[in-house]
Amino acid sequence: MSIETLTFRQANEEDLDAIVYMLSDDKIGSKRERYEHPLPGAYVSAFHAIDADPNIELIVACDGDTVVGVQQVTFTPHITYQGGWRATIEGVRTTSTERGKGLGSQLIRYAIQRAKERGCHIVQLTTDKQRPDALRFYERLGFTASHEGLKLHL
Amino acid sequence: MSIETLTFRQANEEDLDAIVYMLSDDKIGSKRERYEHPLPGAYVSAFHAIDADPNIELIVACDGDTVVGVQQVTFTPHITYQGGWRATIEGVRTTSTERGKGLGSQLIRYAIQRAKERGCHIVQLTTDKQRPDALRFYERLGFTASHEGLKLHL
Repeated sequence: MSIETLTFRQANEEDLDAIVYMLSDDKIGSKRERYEHPLPGAYVSAFHAIDADPNIELIVACDGDTVVGVQQVTFTPHITYQGGWRATIEGVRTTSTERGKGLGSQLIRYAIQRAKERGCHIVQLTTDKQRPDALRFYERLGFTASHEGLKLHL
Repeated sequence: MSIETLTFRQANEEDLDAIVYMLSDDKIGSKRERYEHPLPGAYVSAFHAIDADPNIELIVACDGDTVVGVQQVTFTPHITYQGGWRATIEGVRTTSTERGKGLGSQLIRYAIQRAKERGCHIVQLTTDKQRPDALRFYERLGFTASHEGLKLHL
């Protein structure tokens, strides 16, 4: 893989297998995903809901025809900040065989570029406190850990 | 105000003045909002974008006809967690004259109820580390500060 030839595009349904594989091939993700064939239908339903929403981009990074990274970027209008739009990044993963080559940075930079193109005033994400390396990674890209990220599982 | 007679509903455009007033009547919010008459147009545009999106609920708490609290709840499909939907709460404010009466708790409980009704598996929010009381408030409601909340202002 060469970082110079990476391309980014919105995912299509044929990418879903590679996306779920990346999400499950991860210390935390392996506990909550089900990479099986056929893929559980809820993944397909979620893909269709995302694909139909003009304010969500499920973005894949490609090395030639091979999907090597994924992230979801959701653009949301808010009343706060004088009616500003925010971009929220979630589900960032890169293929385990290509880590440490700058792929993750390029992926996030692409999300920031899309947020600017969409007129957002802020890009936000949360990162699990069990991933200290991820925190440093995002801080190097200019993010500030100014907030606590709270979750309530139903 | 009586906590027993609070009602919750989706905001309409006539509520926008009260909403922006609450957002601006706050230590942090006063630095970034503009409560003026007429309201800056970006607030109105954001309201219309929110109102048109079936996956966003701008919820007001009412004491009779008076708006006494607000929050935005965004419902988002994700590939992660086996294609699960998340509810994200932002912009929670209550009127300064009614604090300490349980209004905030009722507001968040209503968001949790809506998240369950919409089939979400998680409710999430971030809270500014400059608001330690807010962190304890959310922890009492069952949230866990498992994540760092990172922001990048563009």
